[in-house]
Amino acid sequence: MTIQTTKTNAVHGGTLRYLKHDSATTGTPMTLSVFTPGGEGPFPVLIWLSGLTCTEDNFTTKAGAYKAAAEHGVIIVAPDTSPRGPDTKGGGVADDEAYDLGQGAGFYVDATQAPWTPHFRMESYVTGELIELIDSQFPTTKTRSVFGHSMGGHGALTLALNHPELFQSVSAFAPISSPTRCPWGEKALGAYLGDDRSAWARHDAALLIEGGATQGVYDDILVDQGDADPFLVEQLKPELLVEAGKASGQKITVRMQPGYDHSYFFMASFIDDHIAFHATRLKG
Amino acid sequence: MTIQTTKTNAVHGGTLRYLKHDSATTGTPMTLSVFTPGGEGPFPVLIWLSGLTCTEDNFTTKAGAYKAAAEHGVIIVAPDTSPRGPDTKGGGVADDEAYDLGQGAGFYVDATQAPWTPHFRMESYVTGELIELIDSQFPTTKTRSVFGHSMGGHGALTLALNHPELFQSVSAFAPISSPTRCPWGEKALGAYLGDDRSAWARHDAALLIEGGATQGVYDDILVDQGDADPFLVEQLKPELLVEAGKASGQKITVRMQPGYDHSYFFMASFIDDHIAFHATRLKG
Repeated sequence: MTIQTTKTNAVHGGTLRYLKHDSATTGTPMTLSVFTPGGEGPFPVLIWLSGLTCTEDNFTTKAGAYKAAAEHGVIIVAPDTSPRGPDTKGGGVADDEAYDLGQGAGFYVDATQAPWTPHFRMESYVTGELIELIDSQFPTTKTRSVFGHSMGGHGALTLALNHPELFQSVSAFAPISSPTRCPWGEKALGAYLGDDRSAWARHDAALLIEGGATQGVYDDILVDQGDADPFLVEQLKPELLVEAGKASGQKITVRMQPGYDHSYFFMASFIDDHIAFHATRLKG
Repeated sequence: MTIQTTKTNAVHGGTLRYLKHDSATTGTPMTLSVFTPGGEGPFPVLIWLSGLTCTEDNFTTKAGAYKAAAEHGVIIVAPDTSPRGPDTKGGGVADDEAYDLGQGAGFYVDATQAPWTPHFRMESYVTGELIELIDSQFPTTKTRSVFGHSMGGHGALTLALNHPELFQSVSAFAPISSPTRCPWGEKALGAYLGDDRSAWARHDAALLIEGGATQGVYDDILVDQGDADPFLVEQLKPELLVEAGKASGQKITVRMQPGYDHSYFFMASFIDDHIAFHATRLKG
């Protein structure tokens, strides 16, 4: 695997790298950012999954996460939110003019429908090739947790619930809690997976928790949600996570944060709590 | 004075506001961002001056400053780096195609040369109208300090040294230490103030410190500088600050930070130190 380092910055005593590699999973170049703390390691890994329209770069500049990551001795990896490239004509990467479908909106699923196959395979990419790349290129403990925002909160929850052998813990900021029951999710899952809703259920965090298949794997799941978030009622619906947790016995801590919106200012305000939550479980 | 709040975000228990007002000083609309901690106040004020090409917004998202500001109970104000508007034709705001002159590059001086008069009056704006606006609109203690980056580090140092009655303390990240002796400074001061270099001296921090007029006003001046900063040798020259401090007896703490560059990742890594430095002096 050829990995290109496109940019490097010193930050909080560690190093932030922007990487680009040809992905066998998506059949496209993929970009990611990796923060490694100072020192030799090995370090556990925290994977950050971003929301709609984001790249590997929004988290790096806006989340203010690296001070806590340096203090806890945790690597943070942030992949791009989809494959990208020239549009479909001539075998390129499919896209859609809308911000909530196609490039920048991979939804962390493996698409089964044209034109999204063969490139839109973000579930396999994150749970396979990305983890292998990080463990082979950086001094990791080969243990990891996952967190994310909005579409990436959905990604963190569903990947952790579908692949419990890969992750020590999971948390989310303002996740799309039940994509089978909101416009963003119905649009994306319909496009990527087709009209048969039975294929959607394993990409719905609330349904997965309610089903209880992984009950007992995660001692707690941390979710922060701003009550001034404009997407709260129509798209995010954290109450469905609370209800699912009650139904199955999965502990899930949903904190409604008064006055906070959907922006990185909200995430920056509570990111230290999330990193501490994961560090405890990664090192416990 | 009519002040428009264009955007508001909750962050770290406080509030970040983006403001726009018609400035009598620059004769243009001016934009700024203001973080106020939670609680009643009154709070002391820390003015952040940004570098070339920045607006009132870069600091807000990238510096990671508001956690420490909230903890210390300090307001942080970040004005835009120049007047802006449609180009000169028909009495608009002058500009230059280069990134280091004109809009986004006000250099914190009052221009005396065409076409920069009458709008480019950033020294008067920051030391007059901006302070009055903040003290009239927010619960301040009417005490303040100033810090900044690169061109804004130059601005912080020179405004603090020329207006010691206004500020309790001053610090800088990678400042243009001696604009009379570097390409950025020679170009800007020549354009804004004319060819007579005698008019430039009071906008040169190293010369001001060497001259010793304010020796004893500031117990210390804190400067952080990355040693991997690509502008270090040709433009920034912190060694001239060190030499000036030795010549006049002004204490100045210049910390060379190994591996750090000119980016906000560098500033984010040490911003907490600067806020603590100012908080001690604002509350002492």
